[in-house]
Amino acid sequence: MKSIKAKEGEIFDIELEEDLLKRNEELAEKNKHLLDKNKVKAIDIMGSVGSGKTSLIKNLIVRLKKKRCLGVIAGDLTTTIDAERIKEEKVEVVQVNTGKECHLDANLIARALKEFDLRNLDILFIENVGNLICPAEFPLGSHKRIVVVSLTEGPWMVTKHPYIFREADLVVINKIDLARAMKVSVESITKDVHRIRPELKTICTNCLTGEGIEEIIKFLSL
Amino acid sequence: MKSIKAKEGEIFDIELEEDLLKRNEELAEKNKHLLDKNKVKAIDIMGSVGSGKTSLIKNLIVRLKKKRCLGVIAGDLTTTIDAERIKEEKVEVVQVNTGKECHLDANLIARALKEFDLRNLDILFIENVGNLICPAEFPLGSHKRIVVVSLTEGPWMVTKHPYIFREADLVVINKIDLARAMKVSVESITKDVHRIRPELKTICTNCLTGEGIEEIIKFLSL
Repeated sequence: MKSIKAKEGEIFDIELEEDLLKRNEELAEKNKHLLDKNKVKAIDIMGSVGSGKTSLIKNLIVRLKKKRCLGVIAGDLTTTIDAERIKEEKVEVVQVNTGKECHLDANLIARALKEFDLRNLDILFIENVGNLICPAEFPLGSHKRIVVVSLTEGPWMVTKHPYIFREADLVVINKIDLARAMKVSVESITKDVHRIRPELKTICTNCLTGEGIEEIIKFLSL
Repeated sequence: MKSIKAKEGEIFDIELEEDLLKRNEELAEKNKHLLDKNKVKAIDIMGSVGSGKTSLIKNLIVRLKKKRCLGVIAGDLTTTIDAERIKEEKVEVVQVNTGKECHLDANLIARALKEFDLRNLDILFIENVGNLICPAEFPLGSHKRIVVVSLTEGPWMVTKHPYIFREADLVVINKIDLARAMKVSVESITKDVHRIRPELKTICTNCLTGEGIEEIIKFLSL
């Protein structure tokens, strides 16, 4: 089979792209410093559209909000659907609309952080834009990065997106109740994750029943 | 609720991005000219990971290959999974690996076109990288663009990605057999599509049974 591989920066100006990533990393460091100063723990939640990022955040909020002060940054291209769903849990939500951009970046997070009273916050959840490719290259200054994968995304989802799993601290395998309907097994998805990074932690969840949520809270020491 | 909107080019250099999109458009025009000269009809197939783009192409090939000379360009970050699946149908496949880039572009397609004997080709299917955001801005020089959505992607998938539907000539609503398991209705997805563009054609498919495939062939005059 004939095969073509894109050279880096082939139609992009590679120097500018490197510069952009460097500027993003510097801003991410600044965000982390600000969060640390205010003792806020930030969790970046990445995953494809429909993987269940919003449902996961809602489940975490329900279990944490009595003991912790919580905030959420909800990233999306143009809508406020996810932010509205999270607001039902009565926590502070800042909506970030990226327009046509396919990921959050550290600059947008810096702007969003100004909208919170960080001194009164313990945990900040950041829901990234639904995309498994672009968010990987843009750290935001969070302390941990989660990738949410859903069994509905088919059998090759992990194998096709190695970069995002290299950046993750935890993989949440969601919608495990649909394994039979989707003819996908949790074991094979887990194996695919460990083929990319053998030590990467995976936790199975069902956001309809709350299965697995306590394990996430314990693993991340929330 | 507090809300932040990204300004265009906020951390990107906006002039360069415009220049990049312009260069891509010029290359796309060249690709189209080359295809037209050789009487090849090219179809760009976009959609999220796991939506069923590869299965759709395989279904189309099975029905068309006796009457038409077919070729496929299979885009993916790093793997050859989709290309290998398509090769089972004994048509010419060129694999394009984009590395970290989240979409095909007209330059990569220009390189891939050189690998085909275009004089002996009637139809070229181009499977874009699994992503609902970035491919929208990068025309490839194809004659028609299809977006494949799957009922497994949840109820907000269309509403959250207006740009890609504005670029499409046809929306394929796939995996309709899973409507009940996913608690998502075909009617509401169709309504969401028509809220973005009332005249946009939608066709429902089940790639396991072949339902809807003939309707696509007819609609696109393949």
